[in-house]
Amino acid sequence: MINEQYKKMLEGKSVIRQLSEFATARGKEIGYENVYDYSLGNPSVPVPERFTEVMIDLLQTRNSMELHGYSPSVGIASVKDKIAASLNKRFGMTYTGNHIFPTTGAAGALAHALRCVTKPGDEVLVPAPYFPEYSCYINLTGARMKVVPADTERFQIHMEKLEEMLTDNVAALLINTPNNPSGAVYDEKTLKELADLLVRKQREYGHDIFLISDEPYREILFDGIEAPYVSKYYDNTLSCYSYSKSLSLPGERIGYVAVNPRCRDAELISAICSQISRGIGHNCPPSIIQLAVAEVEGLTGDMAVYETNRNLLYKELTELGFECVKPGGTFYIFPKALEEDAAAFCRKALKYDLVLVPSDSFGVPGYFRMAYCIDTQKVECSLPALRKFVRENY
Amino acid sequence: MINEQYKKMLEGKSVIRQLSEFATARGKEIGYENVYDYSLGNPSVPVPERFTEVMIDLLQTRNSMELHGYSPSVGIASVKDKIAASLNKRFGMTYTGNHIFPTTGAAGALAHALRCVTKPGDEVLVPAPYFPEYSCYINLTGARMKVVPADTERFQIHMEKLEEMLTDNVAALLINTPNNPSGAVYDEKTLKELADLLVRKQREYGHDIFLISDEPYREILFDGIEAPYVSKYYDNTLSCYSYSKSLSLPGERIGYVAVNPRCRDAELISAICSQISRGIGHNCPPSIIQLAVAEVEGLTGDMAVYETNRNLLYKELTELGFECVKPGGTFYIFPKALEEDAAAFCRKALKYDLVLVPSDSFGVPGYFRMAYCIDTQKVECSLPALRKFVRENY
Repeated sequence: MINEQYKKMLEGKSVIRQLSEFATARGKEIGYENVYDYSLGNPSVPVPERFTEVMIDLLQTRNSMELHGYSPSVGIASVKDKIAASLNKRFGMTYTGNHIFPTTGAAGALAHALRCVTKPGDEVLVPAPYFPEYSCYINLTGARMKVVPADTERFQIHMEKLEEMLTDNVAALLINTPNNPSGAVYDEKTLKELADLLVRKQREYGHDIFLISDEPYREILFDGIEAPYVSKYYDNTLSCYSYSKSLSLPGERIGYVAVNPRCRDAELISAICSQISRGIGHNCPPSIIQLAVAEVEGLTGDMAVYETNRNLLYKELTELGFECVKPGGTFYIFPKALEEDAAAFCRKALKYDLVLVPSDSFGVPGYFRMAYCIDTQKVECSLPALRKFVRENY
Repeated sequence: MINEQYKKMLEGKSVIRQLSEFATARGKEIGYENVYDYSLGNPSVPVPERFTEVMIDLLQTRNSMELHGYSPSVGIASVKDKIAASLNKRFGMTYTGNHIFPTTGAAGALAHALRCVTKPGDEVLVPAPYFPEYSCYINLTGARMKVVPADTERFQIHMEKLEEMLTDNVAALLINTPNNPSGAVYDEKTLKELADLLVRKQREYGHDIFLISDEPYREILFDGIEAPYVSKYYDNTLSCYSYSKSLSLPGERIGYVAVNPRCRDAELISAICSQISRGIGHNCPPSIIQLAVAEVEGLTGDMAVYETNRNLLYKELTELGFECVKPGGTFYIFPKALEEDAAAFCRKALKYDLVLVPSDSFGVPGYFRMAYCIDTQKVECSLPALRKFVRENY
């Protein structure tokens, strides 16, 4: 009587996690410092000291029953107000606390947003390349995920393909900028074209089409660029955020859904999120973590190392002849493999202790992802191995 | 395009929460000390100091990236091992870490356990009286909840009714001992009869029937009694626990599912739980909270106040002529109302600033619940109001 749907998910184990496990095992054989592990997007810059101070201060000064007491199911009001104020200041929005729904990271935010605006049988479009876990979040709502083929020129959105696929059955579009795995940042032109298309299709079909925007890398930007804030371009936008990357605390599972105040039924959407949470038994993120991130809202760790690593890798890869879109943010780079079969390419790289992730599970064949959230010294040490791998095989 | 199923849940707002909001509002008018608020099961004994010390120690001494890094999706191995060892020592079980799945409180544990062992259309039996949120957890899996009428003599389980309802369609039975709202503790006789019945029916129907045991009040016991550990009596048991009540930290959302090692596919069940978690985007409880509760596993706050309050209320209620089963644990008491319509009874009590919860949403008509997790002084102050209410109305 075990549920077969969930049991089946065990077979679809994440390729990224499997490679990460391989890297750990190989590290035990030859020393982890000798494995060039580019598999996992686990932040490598320290948590800001201010966050630790705030946590300790809460524990030392607050009444324990208040501090650890029930959070309202819609989240703690003061926390929501602080997040809204910060977003308004940084991005010129008009959120109130009622538009913010605290969640267990971006994963929780996406899963709630998807459940809120789709029903079983609806289609959700996802432009490739995309984060593989999206398929889990979408499948469990009963909606169907459809992949929009990638714009491999610039890893923006392939607008013609998107328009073709944007039928009356589409309830939502799920995008991710800055993008995992490509590192591309959607520019203003992309977001304006996207919004125009969605507005036109909403009118044509006579129903809402929601834009679910996954933004955990929002603060990891290079070359001094500013990323346009997606929700400013399209009213029916649900922004899904995580503090995992900006504060380097992926284990603490904290983020939020921010519902554009111009969304139809904007405040209803956050209220419905709390009902979804009630039903899946999650209720709300831990009180102390909600309170702590609200105190450091807008702060980030020191991200400079990611840009240094991007520069080193982009230079080396292009010199070695790889086709590669220069990442504008995140800590990923997504070059074209040197043979058609990305999995075969990555298997060969393993012989040089280079752990690269083949692109197939990101919805694009023939590429590979490197997660360079590692020490710069390790990136430097990996370059000779990368050169050797290429020269001996291609 | 907003999902109507979730939207509808907004209408079924919790009666307990509504009464609690009434008490807060009334408190603003006349001073909260003058409202006898028996609505909400929010623990009133301080969090053990040791928990706070452990949290601060983790923050001060651990490497921040390790402390706040990703937890494995099945939970942190050392945490699971400590929980297993503690349960084995206290209850003579043979759990390993692989049988423990950390969750966001008992709510998360129940929702995962239910998803794991039911499929849409299956029936889940729940003996009355029961915690009203069960219907949310069950409905969202697509299974159907069926209420087994209460044994109002002793608030054990009405075995004849249960046997009648235990058809081939039943995938699971969800019980709660010590019980919210009755305070009853299922005795060994009940658990043995229950196990015999389930074993017999499993054989008859040729499929597993799972027992999902909700145990957040496991450590709140009176008169020195020891509650039998449910899982010892029946192999196919999933024990769902929360630290909310024993450590007074309901806002931190931490608990677990413990899968009986003699369950069919025991280790598979915890693995499937992690896939459910992956799909709903929850993944795992925060790393720091997992690590902290593991350090204090088995510890509880000072629960003496709950027994004192139980004694005061039970004495007063029986003297006033209420029919009432004496609670063996929890911080609830569940007397019979003095008129058939419990809602009308509780509405009248509100005029005396007594906030009582009518029993209808607990699956039994004609009773009311008092949550006495409040200061003893406040219980004492409420007794004259209770007397006045009864004398003036009945």
